Amino acid sequence: MDIHLSYLVDLVCWIKDIVVAVTRENMEAMKQIIQKYQHKRISLIEAGVTRHRSIFNGLKALAEGQSNSNLSKPEVVIIHDAVRPFVEEDVLLKVVVAAKEHGAAGAIRPLVSTVISPSADGSLDHSLDRAKHRASEMPQAFLFDVIYEAYQQCSDYDLEFGTECLQLALKYCHTKAKLVEGSPDLWKVTYKRDLYAAESIIKERISREICVVMNKKEDTDHVGHLLEEMLKIELNDVKVTPGTLCHTGRDVQHIIFEQCYNFVCVNDTTSDFQETQKLLSMLEKSNLSTLYSVVVVSVHFLDFELTPLCQTMEKLLQIRELAKKVKERNILLCGLLICCSQDKQKLQESLRQGAIIIAALIKERNSGLIGQLLVA
Amino acid sequence: MDIHLSYLVDLVCWIKDIVVAVTRENMEAMKQIIQKYQHKRISLIEAGVTRHRSIFNGLKALAEGQSNSNLSKPEVVIIHDAVRPFVEEDVLLKVVVAAKEHGAAGAIRPLVSTVISPSADGSLDHSLDRAKHRASEMPQAFLFDVIYEAYQQCSDYDLEFGTECLQLALKYCHTKAKLVEGSPDLWKVTYKRDLYAAESIIKERISREICVVMNKKEDTDHVGHLLEEMLKIELNDVKVTPGTLCHTGRDVQHIIFEQCYNFVCVNDTTSDFQETQKLLSMLEKSNLSTLYSVVVVSVHFLDFELTPLCQTMEKLLQIRELAKKVKERNILLCGLLICCSQDKQKLQESLRQGAIIIAALIKERNSGLIGQLLVA
Repeated sequence: MDIHLSYLVDLVCWIKDIVVAVTRENMEAMKQIIQKYQHKRISLIEAGVTRHRSIFNGLKALAEGQSNSNLSKPEVVIIHDAVRPFVEEDVLLKVVVAAKEHGAAGAIRPLVSTVISPSADGSLDHSLDRAKHRASEMPQAFLFDVIYEAYQQCSDYDLEFGTECLQLALKYCHTKAKLVEGSPDLWKVTYKRDLYAAESIIKERISREICVVMNKKEDTDHVGHLLEEMLKIELNDVKVTPGTLCHTGRDVQHIIFEQCYNFVCVNDTTSDFQETQKLLSMLEKSNLSTLYSVVVVSVHFLDFELTPLCQTMEKLLQIRELAKKVKERNILLCGLLICCSQDKQKLQESLRQGAIIIAALIKERNSGLIGQLLVA
Repeated sequence: MDIHLSYLVDLVCWIKDIVVAVTRENMEAMKQIIQKYQHKRISLIEAGVTRHRSIFNGLKALAEGQSNSNLSKPEVVIIHDAVRPFVEEDVLLKVVVAAKEHGAAGAIRPLVSTVISPSADGSLDHSLDRAKHRASEMPQAFLFDVIYEAYQQCSDYDLEFGTECLQLALKYCHTKAKLVEGSPDLWKVTYKRDLYAAESIIKERISREICVVMNKKEDTDHVGHLLEEMLKIELNDVKVTPGTLCHTGRDVQHIIFEQCYNFVCVNDTTSDFQETQKLLSMLEKSNLSTLYSVVVVSVHFLDFELTPLCQTMEKLLQIRELAKKVKERNILLCGLLICCSQDKQKLQESLRQGAIIIAALIKERNSGLIGQLLVA
């Protein structure tokens, strides 16, 4: 729910007001979500007992305005389901433009399964030609006067048992809705498997970019740069962006602002967290991790053959305390110790291993692994 | 595909033959999959250019037998899609029983979206009453003679553009199929999000049980038992089963046989892997990890306050080599060092942390994290 709203609010600047129908028992929780995410354009109304009654309540709020709100009657209204959180701006725009011209418009998709009509005894009566039918999805858009008129005219039976707004516009206002081809993203989160899919889609979306944070920008032989190159090779679908923590910190600041949710921070000294701590404090000051978790991998290089591993590891285990602290801010911190061998081939292998570990941490985003010191 | 077949083959003993339609370019790969998983009941036939033509090819193979196979004409045939891998034995049985009585039967599901009929200009012509229609899903079952007759009678147009077998039985044999209510599991893996969902469902299914392997069964104060208790508390949805590595190893052997895919192995000595190695060799001898990965967490207890952590860690880093070796057999091995403090409260906290880490490893099953030594 909140994800959906955030999508709408953050991405679509031309939507003036958002009216959300909420059941009485969820009203308080919803208010808190709105406050937490600082949504400005959302008004809450009480949901009806059926889908159509909820929509009608929303339309009434827009038509009449509300004493404690700035709502006003719009020219065009979009109707959408909260259970379709991945709607894109493009299709919203298409239905709005079509609704302005035709009075009503809705997104459609090809049917995945054949639709059949059962007879009263539970046998097949007939099956429908799949090529001649479509699934009606959301969003739908209407000239406000058309859909409001339809809801005012429609019967109690419609309000109780109907689900399709396009049908109401047709039946009561003789408005033939324009049908707009939608993308697969419009699917309805209905079953448990849909929640799994939604979780994976969100994880995939916020894992498309990694920022590699380094101080020593000038020295291209620096192992940090070699790691950056290795990440580019091993993580095909991920954009690898370099970032610097200069005095003003503007570079990383900019990347945070552009909503990159994954950071690999290369520390200059093996056994302390100076650079990581700088980055963490920047992240804490930003609101980046409000909606989605931010993954930070604190990278340390050490030649295991020259320096005893165990003393360094013991020092680096302090990362556990650091991780616990930033976890409260939805930042998932892990440590990564990479063997920086003099042998070129061994070094390459360690860097490759490091890139694989980083990929795993970013893909899974599992808070159970925070504070761990991984070794490559 | 192979997952689907394995499900059918492994779970449903009363299915005599399985005929799979495969395109020519995938035939070799498919043969290799069948050999790898040692499927005995599968015959391959060449797929047609449309769905109906593929099914017809399969029916012909069953009707005529094949010179190099043991296929024979069955009384009842089930038609199913490989893209619906989560079919349960229960619904297969239901459609078969109904087909024996009625000649044809198919699984149905409620419609998720309203179905509409567009007019030629891309506007809404009319919308269908959702309550009076259903989605036709798979599996479907038929008396063999009914569906074979239907395919022999049907037109080239049907074979090119049709998709619905129930409709053919109705049209050409006047057989009214019985409709059987199916579960949400019958959904069709169609889009990328469906692959995500399928992956999560499989992971969820193989993560429902953890076997905690211990030698010291008699001593209930043993920290291993405390960890077992903590796992029961922290992992609500998971069945925690104790297992022993006695001389004959029968106990764990039995659990492996019953297809538990997750093992937490408590080692008696902090800095070696004796018990873990025993378990790994049992797992390697079994075929458990052929289809799905097996997660093994090698647990070691140490009082960090009494014994220097770093020497133990250095020894335990050998787990990396061990993990690399068993990775080839689809076994994902990680180490977990748990602080075994004298302070009861600290001990509880470490055990809780350990349980959270174990839960994360089992949930994600990410091979990028193998060989790591995690600390709780």
